[in-house]
Amino acid sequence: MEKLTLYIGNKNYSSWSFRPWIAMTAAGIDFEEVLIPFDFPAGNPKFKPISPTGKVPVLHHGDVRVWESLAIIEYVAELFPDRGLWPGAAADRAVARSISMEMISGFRALRNACPMNIRRSKGRISLPEDVMGDVARISTIWSGLRRKSGGPFLFGEFSAADAVFAPVVNRFEAYDLVSNADTLAYMASVKSHPAWIKWQEAALRETWIVPEDEA
Amino acid sequence: MEKLTLYIGNKNYSSWSFRPWIAMTAAGIDFEEVLIPFDFPAGNPKFKPISPTGKVPVLHHGDVRVWESLAIIEYVAELFPDRGLWPGAAADRAVARSISMEMISGFRALRNACPMNIRRSKGRISLPEDVMGDVARISTIWSGLRRKSGGPFLFGEFSAADAVFAPVVNRFEAYDLVSNADTLAYMASVKSHPAWIKWQEAALRETWIVPEDEA
Ligand SMILES: N[C@@H](CCC(=O)N[C@@H](CS)C(=O)NCC(=O)O)C(=O)O
Ligand SMILES: N[C@@H](CCC(=O)N[C@@H](CS)C(=O)NCC(=O)O)C(=O)O
Repeated sequence: MEKLTLYIGNKNYSSWSFRPWIAMTAAGIDFEEVLIPFDFPAGNPKFKPISPTGKVPVLHHGDVRVWESLAIIEYVAELFPDRGLWPGAAADRAVARSISMEMISGFRALRNACPMNIRRSKGRISLPEDVMGDVARISTIWSGLRRKSGGPFLFGEFSAADAVFAPVVNRFEAYDLVSNADTLAYMASVKSHPAWIKWQEAALRETWIVPEDEA
Repeated sequence: MEKLTLYIGNKNYSSWSFRPWIAMTAAGIDFEEVLIPFDFPAGNPKFKPISPTGKVPVLHHGDVRVWESLAIIEYVAELFPDRGLWPGAAADRAVARSISMEMISGFRALRNACPMNIRRSKGRISLPEDVMGDVARISTIWSGLRRKSGGPFLFGEFSAADAVFAPVVNRFEAYDLVSNADTLAYMASVKSHPAWIKWQEAALRETWIVPEDEA
């Protein structure tokens, strides 16, 4: 098979890049990673020739270009049907895709107020009121599914749904947003996954600062 | 197979309901439709018991609940693999999902300024500047893909990607946003699809007014 190349932004900040990266890494898929640091003052000119939207992540596979984090995950899930990217049971898959889409199309208050920032030392900031509504809904999703599946992840084994929520695990941690035991237990499972640790170690070694993302 | 029930909002306004409805109708899938009119002043209380997010659309299938428009489309695409919900070629499917995700996660300026409104008589309104950037990107997607596929739709036959953009065809028309021939030709194809016509006829018969969506 032709080589898969995933273009990503800074590991410390690029929450959208993190999603397909951790999904593919956790699934043991072989791919080349190309990291292009953000250059917001210049309008990220290096993203333009590689990505139809001028945004990362984007996956190159031969002549095929796949952009948007979840479209990339669906593409590799089809290429590697035996790697368990989505849960095996149709009913679980339906819920996994529902919560993934809910994450990707929503939770704007949380996303705007609390950018992903792997290096950030844990600590609260003052937050607009609607952020805690997002936090409550996400906690309900995580703890409900994990209780149902028996854990350690939302549907038992690590799946695309956990990948979609991975950047939120960092946000909950970095901004100290939750205290209930079920939610913290889910976060601990995600943070001890080898793919999470690998991304985190690389993010901690980065030295770029993106002021827009330092809340 | 157990009955599929799709809960939707007002046909005149509910752009998210329109997407799975037209995808399923165009694919000839048998489902029961339950329309629950919006009640924004009261917080849409009737959506709460049927939908985990308190939003429509939501699909009920036996015990399974599927929410989020694109998750519903993926669910029925898996249930009916021979109905061509997604294009047949993997490379086309990748692009179809990429543009669908781009639509669902983006184009906020257009979505906020120009709500779907099937009954609206065609006419311009004054628009924030960034709306025309969204319009230009969508026109590029439509005309490029239609030229490549030979039409009449984005990937030849009507697919989930056309369903995801269907509410935008109404927006472009209702607010008179485009004049280039390729884009208008694509819109004409969508507007003459039997499933579009069926939704439109029902929307025109509705009498509810949602003030928030009258731009
Ligand atoms: N909906 C897109 C979002 C992609 C996105 O916003 N990427 C950011 C980085 S995390 C980006 O490339 N920003 C650069 C820019 O907007 O110039 C996805 O899911 O992939
Ligand atoms: N991302 C969701 C959006 C669903 C949505 O916003 N639905 C609107 C109607 S078009 C709704 O139910 N609004 C009711 C409310 O927010 O109370 C999807 O794709 O299904």
